Amino acid sequence: MPRFKLTVEYDGTGLAGWQRQNDFPSVQGCLETALGKINGVWKEVVSAGRTDAGVHALGQVVHVDMEKPILPYNVMHGINFHLLELSPNIIVKHAEQVSDDFHARFSAIKRKYFYRIINRSARLSLDKYRAWHIPERLDSDLMHEAAQLLVGHHDFSTFRSTQCQSNSPFKTLERLDVTRLLDEVHIHTESRSFLHHQVRNMVGSLRLVGNGKWKPADLQAALLAKDRKYGGETAQPQGLYLTEVVY
Amino acid sequence: MPRFKLTVEYDGTGLAGWQRQNDFPSVQGCLETALGKINGVWKEVVSAGRTDAGVHALGQVVHVDMEKPILPYNVMHGINFHLLELSPNIIVKHAEQVSDDFHARFSAIKRKYFYRIINRSARLSLDKYRAWHIPERLDSDLMHEAAQLLVGHHDFSTFRSTQCQSNSPFKTLERLDVTRLLDEVHIHTESRSFLHHQVRNMVGSLRLVGNGKWKPADLQAALLAKDRKYGGETAQPQGLYLTEVVY
Repeated sequence: MPRFKLTVEYDGTGLAGWQRQNDFPSVQGCLETALGKINGVWKEVVSAGRTDAGVHALGQVVHVDMEKPILPYNVMHGINFHLLELSPNIIVKHAEQVSDDFHARFSAIKRKYFYRIINRSARLSLDKYRAWHIPERLDSDLMHEAAQLLVGHHDFSTFRSTQCQSNSPFKTLERLDVTRLLDEVHIHTESRSFLHHQVRNMVGSLRLVGNGKWKPADLQAALLAKDRKYGGETAQPQGLYLTEVVY
Repeated sequence: MPRFKLTVEYDGTGLAGWQRQNDFPSVQGCLETALGKINGVWKEVVSAGRTDAGVHALGQVVHVDMEKPILPYNVMHGINFHLLELSPNIIVKHAEQVSDDFHARFSAIKRKYFYRIINRSARLSLDKYRAWHIPERLDSDLMHEAAQLLVGHHDFSTFRSTQCQSNSPFKTLERLDVTRLLDEVHIHTESRSFLHHQVRNMVGSLRLVGNGKWKPADLQAALLAKDRKYGGETAQPQGLYLTEVVY
């Protein structure tokens, strides 16, 4: 059974997130249904990581096993053909055949996420499902300075969802950059892997630094408290984009 | 009656465009309904220019007359409050009081538009209502070179909708820049004013240069033909953004 690595883009709006659900369209569910129509039998689609409802992906990576030899181009177009009907929110951008030991989740050495804040008084129109609207003025330079306190190897329990199934709260955060572009605040982060809600919980805490409720030292104190109740709110899902998975 | 200048952003998806319609929500219709709820009487809302169904605006400008003295902040928030119910696709970003001789259409000295193409094989998911999908590879450098032949004072009949109500087909195009950013091709254009469909028709013709069907000289020949039937197709509305109106 040839294995394929697919790069998938999706608009998370109106989807239940990555994980297959019984009664609501999900990315995994739609991909598995499309794949089943090509293979004739159901097969699981494995991703680099789950994304929550409303979260977008520019470069989610999955692996699938096909029943018979098939060209990568035909896997991609076959799935996309069926996706058009199942969910126009999902598209396979690239397909390539990989060896049997490639695993979308376990072979990944880095995940990259982008978080987009629109920082203005007026609520959003064009980007209402594409960004988090924060009306109070954010000091992005101070957010960036504080963010560097989270970079490195730490116990990230403060930024970990209570639903998180990871064995360990320790992660090595490789990048957490905050920049401003006109009325937008952009956050780029990279790590081998993230805890459940880690990015959104870090962003929610950075908001408190940006609007002056916290000093950078308060962010560090929150990290060291190793307890979710000392962290800021969970940033809204629609501002989060899984941009790339590196193997 | 104090006059106000409002800067309006909208997501054109699912709207009939700028102009008031009897049986379909439009930007003008929604703004006038919202304004009527504040003023108690119906008043016309005048814009810098009409936009077609599906076209977006980051900085459309309109003027409105209020029945009674009112703070700009209250005009903005009053309209936005009612818009939330009428159409969450529309938002007033800024309001300021202006003199009675300010006219959103006639006082404008420059309109700026942005056109966004996504140039890749896979169809769009996240940006399906935000860009024009062109699958064949476009040479953006050649598009830019050809575009410069349209800059200046010309008879733009080749790029004019048959529905255009302008008295003259002559316009002075001040800017038409084509740049590439990864798999996107961006077109920025500026003019005191544009003919109906002029931007979309110029973009549709530039596609032919980008994909090699036309040489830059063919674009010039089309311009000089002064006849719509020598121009390329009309680019899709969802890639077009009215970004700014200068007074």
